[in-house]
Amino acid sequence: MAVSSSLFTSAFQGSMSLSSRKTCNKDFMFNHSSLSKQSGYLKSIYPRNPRFLPNEKLTKLELTNRLSERKGALCCALELDNTPSFSVGKKFQLDDVIEAQQFDKEDLSAIFEVARQMELIEKNSPGSQILKGYLMATLFYEPSTRTRLSFESAMKRLGGEVLTTENAREFSSAAKGETLEDTIRTVEGYSDIIVMRHFASGAAKRAAATADIPIINAGDGPGQHPTQALLDVYTIEREIGKLDGIKVGLVGDLANGRTVRSLAYLLAKYKDVKIYFVSPDVVKMKDDIKDYLTSKGIEWEESADLMEVATECDVVYQTRIQRERFGERIDLYEEARGKYIVDRRVLGAMPKHAVVMHPLPRLDEITVDVDSDPRAAYFRQAKNGLYIRMALLKLLLVGW
Amino acid sequence: MAVSSSLFTSAFQGSMSLSSRKTCNKDFMFNHSSLSKQSGYLKSIYPRNPRFLPNEKLTKLELTNRLSERKGALCCALELDNTPSFSVGKKFQLDDVIEAQQFDKEDLSAIFEVARQMELIEKNSPGSQILKGYLMATLFYEPSTRTRLSFESAMKRLGGEVLTTENAREFSSAAKGETLEDTIRTVEGYSDIIVMRHFASGAAKRAAATADIPIINAGDGPGQHPTQALLDVYTIEREIGKLDGIKVGLVGDLANGRTVRSLAYLLAKYKDVKIYFVSPDVVKMKDDIKDYLTSKGIEWEESADLMEVATECDVVYQTRIQRERFGERIDLYEEARGKYIVDRRVLGAMPKHAVVMHPLPRLDEITVDVDSDPRAAYFRQAKNGLYIRMALLKLLLVGW
Amino acid sequence: MAVSSSLFTSAFQGSMSLSSRKTCNKDFMFNHSSLSKQSGYLKSIYPRNPRFLPNEKLTKLELTNRLSERKGALCCALELDNTPSFSVGKKFQLDDVIEAQQFDKEDLSAIFEVARQMELIEKNSPGSQILKGYLMATLFYEPSTRTRLSFESAMKRLGGEVLTTENAREFSSAAKGETLEDTIRTVEGYSDIIVMRHFASGAAKRAAATADIPIINAGDGPGQHPTQALLDVYTIEREIGKLDGIKVGLVGDLANGRTVRSLAYLLAKYKDVKIYFVSPDVVKMKDDIKDYLTSKGIEWEESADLMEVATECDVVYQTRIQRERFGERIDLYEEARGKYIVDRRVLGAMPKHAVVMHPLPRLDEITVDVDSDPRAAYFRQAKNGLYIRMALLKLLLVGW
Repeated sequence: MAVSSSLFTSAFQGSMSLSSRKTCNKDFMFNHSSLSKQSGYLKSIYPRNPRFLPNEKLTKLELTNRLSERKGALCCALELDNTPSFSVGKKFQLDDVIEAQQFDKEDLSAIFEVARQMELIEKNSPGSQILKGYLMATLFYEPSTRTRLSFESAMKRLGGEVLTTENAREFSSAAKGETLEDTIRTVEGYSDIIVMRHFASGAAKRAAATADIPIINAGDGPGQHPTQALLDVYTIEREIGKLDGIKVGLVGDLANGRTVRSLAYLLAKYKDVKIYFVSPDVVKMKDDIKDYLTSKGIEWEESADLMEVATECDVVYQTRIQRERFGERIDLYEEARGKYIVDRRVLGAMPKHAVVMHPLPRLDEITVDVDSDPRAAYFRQAKNGLYIRMALLKLLLVGW
Repeated sequence: MAVSSSLFTSAFQGSMSLSSRKTCNKDFMFNHSSLSKQSGYLKSIYPRNPRFLPNEKLTKLELTNRLSERKGALCCALELDNTPSFSVGKKFQLDDVIEAQQFDKEDLSAIFEVARQMELIEKNSPGSQILKGYLMATLFYEPSTRTRLSFESAMKRLGGEVLTTENAREFSSAAKGETLEDTIRTVEGYSDIIVMRHFASGAAKRAAATADIPIINAGDGPGQHPTQALLDVYTIEREIGKLDGIKVGLVGDLANGRTVRSLAYLLAKYKDVKIYFVSPDVVKMKDDIKDYLTSKGIEWEESADLMEVATECDVVYQTRIQRERFGERIDLYEEARGKYIVDRRVLGAMPKHAVVMHPLPRLDEITVDVDSDPRAAYFRQAKNGLYIRMALLKLLLVGW
Repeated sequence: MAVSSSLFTSAFQGSMSLSSRKTCNKDFMFNHSSLSKQSGYLKSIYPRNPRFLPNEKLTKLELTNRLSERKGALCCALELDNTPSFSVGKKFQLDDVIEAQQFDKEDLSAIFEVARQMELIEKNSPGSQILKGYLMATLFYEPSTRTRLSFESAMKRLGGEVLTTENAREFSSAAKGETLEDTIRTVEGYSDIIVMRHFASGAAKRAAATADIPIINAGDGPGQHPTQALLDVYTIEREIGKLDGIKVGLVGDLANGRTVRSLAYLLAKYKDVKIYFVSPDVVKMKDDIKDYLTSKGIEWEESADLMEVATECDVVYQTRIQRERFGERIDLYEEARGKYIVDRRVLGAMPKHAVVMHPLPRLDEITVDVDSDPRAAYFRQAKNGLYIRMALLKLLLVGW
C-alpha cells in the first residue's frame, strides 16, 4: 500500500541520516529531511515537518545515536576551518540555522531570494498564510526583546503562531537542574520549530543534535548569532546592489563584536572584496579573522583614519564600544568610545551611493543628525532582519 | 498611471503633514493620514496603515523634522489650556491616542458609537475579523498586566495579533542606553501599531513624534492614561444614559489620582454637570482643575459628608488612597484611608438609578458586600475598557 | 419568541445552579451549564460559554451567594473522603478543573476518549479550528514555563488564542493588595477561560467560586495539579493498554510529591491494581493515602528493593527528590537522592512491555542512557499532557 510503503521509506531515510549526522563537521545539515523532501507524497499524507517520523522506535534509536554525538558537538565561537556545504541539486535543504559558517555563497543567494519575496507579501494575501497552523517556540535563556520581537513578528506575518518564553532560565533548568537536552525534548512536543537564545556558546548545536524539529540559533553567548550575519549581508546587497567588488569599513569594537567577525567571514565568500578595520587599539580585529581573509585572497587593511576610509567605502559598518569589556578601566573605555564617531562630517566624506550600517542598539557612536540622511541604513537594516527571519522560517517549515 | 500617481499624492500629503505636526499644541493630530484617508484607492492598493509611505526618502525627511520637534514635545501632566480639535468633515481622524485633552465632545461621541458596535461583535462573526493581519506591539516599560491584557484582548477579539513586551526597560534601553526614539523606530518595523506604557511623563508624545505608525498611550508615569479617561466617561453614559445634566461625586485621593483629574476635565465638556469633591484634607483636588471647571461654567462643590453627596449623585466615583503618596506619615495615610468608605450604608442613601464606579484595583474603600448590588458598576466599567480599546484600535488601524 | 424564552430558561437555570453549588462537596460541578447544554438552540444564538448569562442582575445575585461560600471553599491538599460524581446521562458535564478528586472512573474514560481524538488532529484540518475565536488567559502567580507552554500549545493547536501573564503576582495583587476574587472578575471580562497557577492551596477553588467562566487549576501550591494527574493515568492506559489489573511502582519522594499522591488516589478507582512504594525512609508515603488505598481494597506494599519491584511492575514511576524539602540536612538529601536510581540495570530487570515514567524535570534519578530505550515513556508522557489539555479545553469551552 502506498501509505505504509512511503512511511517505511521515511523511516529508512531516518536511519540513513544518522550516519551523515555523525560526519557533522563536514556536512552536518544533510540528513533524512533533505531526502524525504523528494517524496512529495509523504508530505501530503503527513503534513507536519518531515522530521516527525511516525516510527517511534526508530526515532528513539536516532536519539541514542545523537546523544553520543553530543560531546563532540560543542562549537567554539567562529570556527574558521569549517566550511560545510549542504546544497542538494539546485536548491539547498535547510534543517537548522546554527552558525554563519554553515552557509555558502549559493545558500546565501537562495535565502536572499526568498527574503525578497517576503518583502512583497501583502497583509491578508495568500502569502501571509503560508505558515498557518505552525507553532514556533521562542526559548530565550537571556532576554533579547529586539531579536525575540523580530522572530515573532516574522512568524505572525506568515500566519504562524508563537509560544513565548522570555525567562527560560527559570524553565526548571537553573532552578531545578534540568539539562538543556531534556528541556528541548519537552518543548519540541509543544511546537514545530524552536528559536533559541542561550548564554552558553555551542548551546544551539546541542539543541539541534537533540531535537527532531528545526532549531534556529538566535544567539548563543559569545558564540554565534547567524541571523544577524545574514541580515547584514542581505542589507549590503539590497543597499549597494552587489556583493562582489565592494569595499567595507568595519568600525568600532572589532575584538569583541561577534557581528563584525561573522560579517568579515561571510564577505570573504565574495570576489574582489576589500575590508578596512578602523578601531581603537584596545579592541582591534583579532588575527584569526585577518589570517582567514588573507588565506581567501581577501584584501584587508587597518586604518586609524575614519575620514579617509569613509571616502573609499561602499559601506561604513559602525559598532558600539561595549563598556562591559573594559572592566574597571573606564578611562580606556571613554577614550575608545569617543574615538570613531560617525557624524555629518564623516557622512560628508562618504560617496553618494554608500551607506552607514549598525547592528543596533546605538549610543552616540552615530550622531542623531545622521539619521535623516538617506544613507543612514541602520533602521532599514533592522527591518531586513524581519524579512530574513521570515525567509528562514518558511524554508525550515515548508521548504521552497 | 493610477498607482504611481496616488503614491505621489500620498508622498505629497506626507510632506504637508510635517508643517501641521509642527503646530503640535494646537492640532497635532492632523497630518497626512487624515488626508490620505480620503483617497480610498490608495488604501486598496496599499492596504497597510496609510502612514507607511512607500517613498523612503520623504519619510526620512519627516523623521528629521520630527526630531527637531522633540524638545518642545514633552507634555506635563494635564495641560488644561490645550484644547485641540481634529475633526475632519463629519467624521474625525485618529492617528495616535496620547492624552485625554486631544478629544472634544464630538470625538467622544464618535468613539463611543464605535465602542457600542464593539459590544455587539459575536465570536467568529465577520466583525470579529476586522483587524485580521494587523500586528500590535505592547511596549511596556513598567508592568501593568491589567491594562496590557485589556489591550491584547481587544486586539485579539478583532482578529488581530500581538507582540508582547512586558519588561521593555530591558529592551536595550536601560541596560544599553538606547533612546526611546531608536526603540520606537525598530519596533515600528515589526508591527502596525504600538501600545506603550512608560514611566516618564511625555514619553508617548515623543514616541508619536517619531513613529510612522499609530501610538496609543497606555499610561506615561504621572502624565496621562487617556484610555482610562475614555472608558470612565463611556461607562457613565452607558450606566446613566446621558452625560449632560449629571451629578458626579469624586471620592478619595483627588490630589494624586490622574483618573479623577482626567474625568473632571472631560466632564467639563458636557452641559449642566455638577461635580462634588469628597476627600481627606491631605489629598484634596488641586486648584488648577477647580479653576478650569469654573472657567467652563461647571458647578463644583467640596464636601466632607459622603452620605449627603451619595443622596445627590448619579455617580459615586471612588478611588484608592495610595499609600506611597504619604511617605513615612503612615498615621496620615491610615486616617485618610478609613475616612470615606463606600459600604451598604452609603449604597442605601444612593438613588436607585445611580452607580458606584472605581478604576480598580480596590482595597477596602468599597466593601465587598457592595459588589452584589446592581449599582456596583466597577467590574462592568473594567469590561468597558475592552470595548473602548477595541474601538480605538479599529479607528486607528482601519478607520471608520 | 424562541430567543427570549431560551434566554429566560438559561437565567432560571443559573439560579438553580446556586443551590447545587452550595452542596459543593457532593457534586459541586453540576450547575446551570450542564442543563443549558441540553438546549442546543441556546448555544447557537449565544455562542459564548453558556455561563455568560445575559441577565446581569441574576449574575450579580449569584456572585453574592458565591462570595458567602468562599470561607468553606478552601480545600486542603488531597481530601480523600471527597468523591463527587457529576455525570449527567451518558456524557458528563465539565465546568471547571480544580482537583483530581472531582473525576470518577467514567469521567476519566470520557476525557481520555477526547484526548485520543486530539492526538489525531492534523495541522490545518477542520479539527484544528474548533476553538477559533476563544481566548484563554494564563494567570500564573508563580512561574511554570513548562505547564504554561503546554496549555498555550493546546489552545493554539485548536485554533484558540492566548493572553499570557507569567508574573501575575505583580498583577496589582501583591503590589497593591487586590484580592484574587477581584482579579478573577477583571480577567474574566477579557477572556473565555482562565488557566491559573497559584502559590496558595485552594486558590483555584476560590477562583472557580467567583468566575462565570471556566477555571483550570494548573497547580495551586502544595494543593492540586489535576492535569498532571490526568496525563499520568492517560499515559499508563496508552502505554500499557489497560488500567485494571496493573502493577505500579511509585519511586522517590513519596511524602512531598503531589504527583504520586494524586496518581495513587486515581489508580484506586480501578480493579485489581497493586501499588509498590519505594522510597528513602525520610520521604515515605504518608498514612492517609495508604489508609485510603486499603479502604478501597487496593493492595499496596512498601519495598526497599527497587530491582525486585522492577521485575514485578507494569509501570515504574520515578520522581525527583526535592532538595528544598531537606532544609539544612544536605547529608540526608544526598543519601535519599542517590538511593533509588533508574538505570540500565533496573531497565534490564523490567518486563518488555513495562514503562518508566517521570513527571519531569529529572535530574539524575533516571540516567541518560535509559532515554533511548523504547520503555522510557517520560517524554511521551509530557507530550500526552498536550492532548489531555486540548481535551479539557475543548470540553470546557464547546462541550462534546
